[in-house]
Amino acid sequence: MDRGRLEAFSDGVMAVAITLLALNLTVAGPGHGSLLNQLYLHWPAFLGYLISFLTVGIIWVNHHVLVMSITRVDRILLFANLMFLLFVVLIPFGTATATDYLPGNSRDARLAMVLYAGICLGMSAGFGAIFECTLHGERVSRPLPPEQHWAARRRFVGGSLVYVAAIVIAVFSAIAALALIGLVGVYYIFERLPASAGDVAEADSDTK
Amino acid sequence: MDRGRLEAFSDGVMAVAITLLALNLTVAGPGHGSLLNQLYLHWPAFLGYLISFLTVGIIWVNHHVLVMSITRVDRILLFANLMFLLFVVLIPFGTATATDYLPGNSRDARLAMVLYAGICLGMSAGFGAIFECTLHGERVSRPLPPEQHWAARRRFVGGSLVYVAAIVIAVFSAIAALALIGLVGVYYIFERLPASAGDVAEADSDTK
Amino acid sequence: MDRGRLEAFSDGVMAVAITLLALNLTVAGPGHGSLLNQLYLHWPAFLGYLISFLTVGIIWVNHHVLVMSITRVDRILLFANLMFLLFVVLIPFGTATATDYLPGNSRDARLAMVLYAGICLGMSAGFGAIFECTLHGERVSRPLPPEQHWAARRRFVGGSLVYVAAIVIAVFSAIAALALIGLVGVYYIFERLPASAGDVAEADSDTK
Amino acid sequence: MDRGRLEAFSDGVMAVAITLLALNLTVAGPGHGSLLNQLYLHWPAFLGYLISFLTVGIIWVNHHVLVMSITRVDRILLFANLMFLLFVVLIPFGTATATDYLPGNSRDARLAMVLYAGICLGMSAGFGAIFECTLHGERVSRPLPPEQHWAARRRFVGGSLVYVAAIVIAVFSAIAALALIGLVGVYYIFERLPASAGDVAEADSDTK
Repeated sequence: MDRGRLEAFSDGVMAVAITLLALNLTVAGPGHGSLLNQLYLHWPAFLGYLISFLTVGIIWVNHHVLVMSITRVDRILLFANLMFLLFVVLIPFGTATATDYLPGNSRDARLAMVLYAGICLGMSAGFGAIFECTLHGERVSRPLPPEQHWAARRRFVGGSLVYVAAIVIAVFSAIAALALIGLVGVYYIFERLPASAGDVAEADSDTK
Repeated sequence: MDRGRLEAFSDGVMAVAITLLALNLTVAGPGHGSLLNQLYLHWPAFLGYLISFLTVGIIWVNHHVLVMSITRVDRILLFANLMFLLFVVLIPFGTATATDYLPGNSRDARLAMVLYAGICLGMSAGFGAIFECTLHGERVSRPLPPEQHWAARRRFVGGSLVYVAAIVIAVFSAIAALALIGLVGVYYIFERLPASAGDVAEADSDTK
Repeated sequence: MDRGRLEAFSDGVMAVAITLLALNLTVAGPGHGSLLNQLYLHWPAFLGYLISFLTVGIIWVNHHVLVMSITRVDRILLFANLMFLLFVVLIPFGTATATDYLPGNSRDARLAMVLYAGICLGMSAGFGAIFECTLHGERVSRPLPPEQHWAARRRFVGGSLVYVAAIVIAVFSAIAALALIGLVGVYYIFERLPASAGDVAEADSDTK
Repeated sequence: MDRGRLEAFSDGVMAVAITLLALNLTVAGPGHGSLLNQLYLHWPAFLGYLISFLTVGIIWVNHHVLVMSITRVDRILLFANLMFLLFVVLIPFGTATATDYLPGNSRDARLAMVLYAGICLGMSAGFGAIFECTLHGERVSRPLPPEQHWAARRRFVGGSLVYVAAIVIAVFSAIAALALIGLVGVYYIFERLPASAGDVAEADSDTK
């Protein structure tokens, strides 16, 4: 089974999800106060759009790189990918809910941010599941040697841990948790996940 | 005619349909009671999202496998595929309607679930129509021998029969019918439809 | 310039447009009368969904066949294709507006149906513009001999003329015009447009 | 890394964004005055649809041509492309907001048009960033000689400057700014951006 349609379907879902983010940006229009005021009151929605667009965009780039190393697509990999997409599709809902309750820090605002960070964590875990698939079953052309599996996982758990931290922070401050999720996005513009066996091997030998 | 655009269009439709499922998840937002309560009252919508995502995801996997065996795309096959997509596109509508009337078991809740299960049955029948196309007219590279056609159909009718059962159950209990549809999804994560002639032949010889 | 992305973009737009058709199907939900009654009152929306799905599905099939014969994509062809897509994207809007005013035959119902038939005509004309492109400028591998251009155009004008007829009929009866548009769809399941030079040549020699 | 998925994802996002433009066209339906009057009152929405469809359609054509010259896709290029798509996705929101406040020339109408022209400028700047990527780092097969970089940039800054002009004009007249943005679209149907090194070189030698 070739990986072409896996990529096509995933690209389709991510493209639709990233575009639906903009549906959260509507303003009420004429007769609901000045437009400047309406836009100002919606600043959390615009910030949320930026952060979620960046988050989905980066996960798309990483998905792109990760899947490229795959040579054999089987049923387990397809379902790991579906689990990943299940959370990608929830991102617009999570973003809308979280930013609706901002800028306050009410109990609901914090709960909404826990939900949003949880969706990000689910997406990250789904990506980790795809990565885990690449470690086993001869699905990639250059498999990672078993002694490097834990080093590679640590790097991934590291990435997901930031979203765990965002959930914990969201219990206290919604906006601080959102800022952290945004920083993850900015960080990954400059850095990148070890996407293929070769990269991890290189990275591993770099740190020795 | 190559099968590339058949796959691209089908992937596009399924990707959009699966992403539109999340549009059913909106909560009313600030000023409509606590968020926890709003999310709690929407639990059928979240359950429906999970089940429909799984259902469409699995049918995508099976469509993927089935179409891969096709070497000649003609007009009949294209329209069988359109009939299949007609029901795929109805899934978000069916899910929204069915879960709106849950968790009660009112007459409307049961009718809505009959509708939803009927849409799933239509999708399954459309998939069966594509499969039927692969049995005739030299559309696949390794055609199934005629004496195995009925065995293959039985396997497919078996799959669709679960949705017939869900319609019957929905007449009495909406939530039980939804649970059955969800179980179909969970079952297919582990099992799989006989997708190509070779698979059916193998499966057939296995049972002898 | 290859035709791959022309196909990918067109497939994407048609896939999204065909899926958005289902957004017109929402019922108001609990507390707005019995579901059966709500569904019954919405029967024009369901009929419209069927007809528009069929109409877009068929034009996708024909677009598929037509573009396959193209070997050179230039700017004129790209804009002819954009003009075609401009009307495809309007189909969900046209369907929603036309079926909202049914089943009555009020002045507004007839105007809405004129609008819908007009959008179908625009789509058909856009398709005709792409076809016209294939007659000139060495864009296809097997160009149609000039003496057959008018025969081929007549066949296409014939197809568009049905939509002109639908506009005229809509001035008197909205539902009759919708029925005609539906019949076009049913007709094209069994027949097909002359899509490539070879087909027209064959068809032409058949009628001699 | 191949450019296939960059194209697929970009095509997906642009296809969805261009299709979502039609969501702005809904009329209120029966019981809200005559349909003719409703359509008439919505004429700015229809004009906005036309102009934004043309604008996104043209940028898709130019993106198509530009990316075709790229042979090596790296992380910087992927993020330039994401920045471009960030603004493409905002186009339906910008169009809806700008045309909601038309045809008047209130302070809000002018602000909304500044916002819309700003989104167009952002899209144009994002496209410029992708173009800038093609000038460096051996990402294209036929790189442009350094002495022609500024000539090529001038052509691009020229294109973006029209959107800067639209922002300035929008401060005084919303409708005049919209007309200018529409003219850009009409202009590019006939002209085209220098998309590859070879084109710029040709264009450059033409003007000598």
